[in-house]
Amino acid sequence: MTAFPARCDTLVTNGHVLTMDDAFTAIRDGAVAISKGRIAAIGPMAEAAGVAARAVIDARGGIVLPGFVNTHCHAAMVLFRGLADDRPLDGFLKAVWAAEAAHVTPETVRAGAALGLAEMALGGVTHVVDMYFHPDATVDAARHVGIGLTAGPVFIGFDGIDHLPWPERLRFAEAFVTRHRGTEGLDLMLMPHSAYTLDAAQLAEVTALSERLGVPVHIHAAEAPSEMALVAARHGTTPVRALDRAGMIRPGTLLAHAVHLDDAEIALLAERGVAMAHCPLSNAKLASGAARLCDLRSAGAVTSLGTDGAASGNDLDMFRTMRLAAQMAILASGAPDALPARDVVAMATREGARAAGLGARKGRLTAGMDADLIVVDLSSPHLIPSYDPYSSLVYAAGRSDVAHVMARGRPIVADRRIVADVTSDIAAVRAVASSISASALRA
Amino acid sequence: MTAFPARCDTLVTNGHVLTMDDAFTAIRDGAVAISKGRIAAIGPMAEAAGVAARAVIDARGGIVLPGFVNTHCHAAMVLFRGLADDRPLDGFLKAVWAAEAAHVTPETVRAGAALGLAEMALGGVTHVVDMYFHPDATVDAARHVGIGLTAGPVFIGFDGIDHLPWPERLRFAEAFVTRHRGTEGLDLMLMPHSAYTLDAAQLAEVTALSERLGVPVHIHAAEAPSEMALVAARHGTTPVRALDRAGMIRPGTLLAHAVHLDDAEIALLAERGVAMAHCPLSNAKLASGAARLCDLRSAGAVTSLGTDGAASGNDLDMFRTMRLAAQMAILASGAPDALPARDVVAMATREGARAAGLGARKGRLTAGMDADLIVVDLSSPHLIPSYDPYSSLVYAAGRSDVAHVMARGRPIVADRRIVADVTSDIAAVRAVASSISASALRA
Repeated sequence: MTAFPARCDTLVTNGHVLTMDDAFTAIRDGAVAISKGRIAAIGPMAEAAGVAARAVIDARGGIVLPGFVNTHCHAAMVLFRGLADDRPLDGFLKAVWAAEAAHVTPETVRAGAALGLAEMALGGVTHVVDMYFHPDATVDAARHVGIGLTAGPVFIGFDGIDHLPWPERLRFAEAFVTRHRGTEGLDLMLMPHSAYTLDAAQLAEVTALSERLGVPVHIHAAEAPSEMALVAARHGTTPVRALDRAGMIRPGTLLAHAVHLDDAEIALLAERGVAMAHCPLSNAKLASGAARLCDLRSAGAVTSLGTDGAASGNDLDMFRTMRLAAQMAILASGAPDALPARDVVAMATREGARAAGLGARKGRLTAGMDADLIVVDLSSPHLIPSYDPYSSLVYAAGRSDVAHVMARGRPIVADRRIVADVTSDIAAVRAVASSISASALRA
Repeated sequence: MTAFPARCDTLVTNGHVLTMDDAFTAIRDGAVAISKGRIAAIGPMAEAAGVAARAVIDARGGIVLPGFVNTHCHAAMVLFRGLADDRPLDGFLKAVWAAEAAHVTPETVRAGAALGLAEMALGGVTHVVDMYFHPDATVDAARHVGIGLTAGPVFIGFDGIDHLPWPERLRFAEAFVTRHRGTEGLDLMLMPHSAYTLDAAQLAEVTALSERLGVPVHIHAAEAPSEMALVAARHGTTPVRALDRAGMIRPGTLLAHAVHLDDAEIALLAERGVAMAHCPLSNAKLASGAARLCDLRSAGAVTSLGTDGAASGNDLDMFRTMRLAAQMAILASGAPDALPARDVVAMATREGARAAGLGARKGRLTAGMDADLIVVDLSSPHLIPSYDPYSSLVYAAGRSDVAHVMARGRPIVADRRIVADVTSDIAAVRAVASSISASALRA
């Protein structure tokens, strides 16, 4: 371990520090020194005694771990949280699409994204891969909240709710990447929607653009039985095979959902270094199915966790996502030891960072990494006693136990409160919701 | 609806009141008047304008609903919360049984139960059916926390960790019932453990005692594949059929788990008015299996929700229980509309009360019922917007959104804080946990 410096910007003290490095190194009474947005040193409290820090965060009795990386979300869709529950998938999609067509603008995306990103920050997320229309509005919201973001242009094979015809969509994509390349706190991916909304030529064009710009791809794939049927009709094969034909099954690609895979596809994803974002909250609520998580992990694929959007989820809670991922894996396998708690925490942190292409900067608490970290308080009754920190995180803790969150060394949640002011965003979301509710009552 | 009285003890104002009566009557801007521990009246705020109340609870912007009835728990087992995660069932049971044998006394049960009951109260539980050794200690803890309790003597076919041989167990049971009959806030059931720890003669003796004392039975049944094998070896049949031979499959009986049922057993439970406590958190984590919840409900059986103990669960959270019940039902059926959110809330409230034999007093907010209610605040980002209160409760809210809890008209949680002082109980639990951790390290 690196020695503590004489001075630092922030010192996190007295925590049970889970570094989430590959050896699961943990320091029971540890400290984390942060300078210039990065981790300067980590070690036992005894070695940090003389460090002069401008700010101190006392994590006494709590856990310090890397911030969660949410690898699949549509933050702005909090606008439609729970709008169309308890109905079959086609009814759900019709209701959500109608609401999107009527209400999605850059302004409402900015408000919804700010609210969704604030919700995530309060639950310990420090970086999120977000796919939605009007991505500049989400970039703006992320800057306001202070959370790390991977954003990118959306590709859909028809004029989407942003009303961009295909050629303009390609121009917008290149301009977006050029405009934002190198922006602090922002990473870039191209975000084609899926093989059921894009044809083979369009998918291939996105691959070519991705290679030319040097920006990887994030895409929905093999989410639900209905998608499998649509892709079979459109491409004559499965989603993963259709993407492979388009050149997208290659290192750096991140698939959202990846529920319905056969053995050959699992082997292919592992061999090609394709990562998947497992979204159990959404897969369960929409009856999409149970992903073959343990098979993917056994094959050596990178598996990570996403919340998906709140229209399907209905919240953006990585604690519930962790717990449900474990529960579904255990139920599917019939073995209580199918997916140990510490592996679930790894999926939410270092594996999430790797899936998003950020493994060299995020997901582990080691010297030189981005200071993306959270302090989880263990003093509430539901966390007493705590025999094992990973078990407490996966099976008992929740977002309300997150006391502090730092992203790139800056506090974005302090003493359980969001630092950014999102009052006006909340008011704007409520106005949209009132309008939707009123029109639903009229219909 | 009953007219508001001129004065009352407590008036809950400005809430979206979900009465959870059979018609799901709800009052968007409603008030609840409480006097002498019961609900005096419910109606629109406009009609409550002149009511003089000694105390007012402002539920503005929030939801008011009946307190949750947790129909299967072992509260004191928070002592062993997460002690033996991520290992096969036999390893889990060995670890927990060893810890119980070494550490369970009336004193540790009192401390553990107080902590577990406080955790439940903070999460909106106002009544719990609790099965554990040394039940007088749990009765004591429930009185301290102010939560409603159904307790009873445990029957196990060998000298359990309370070291009671069978004849003494029967005498203790009768004395317990006699001693506690009519105690305010306490209801009684006999609690034979299961058909895998009791033989046919013992089960029949418990049935006879139950009939003689006029106290119903709560028992584990058909939880896990391993239990099915044990019961087949011991009784030559399934758990439900073994209980039926002993006369226990009759109105008033409450089965915990009831995961592994065949069609004939489902029909039998519905026909005989036997209720089941569905425990998804435990069933998922221990790989017990997915209960046939929708089949039981279609057949007309009373279905309710339990957290089970924290050794298996690992927490006592009825919000997570509601959400996982819905998710598992949807996944099992492949239909997103398999179990609508409002039916899940009904399972956690009025159906829970019916399952526990308390349907005439609890589980609905109507005049004359016990004033067991909770106020859920909807102002946190993860609850904005709220298009439907039942959806918000099942799919987005959590224990940290519970602002106020009243049991029989008395506040047991106020402004998110537990009213009872459980500091010394927490210290006692931590001392036991330290001792267990130290011995685990030695082993």
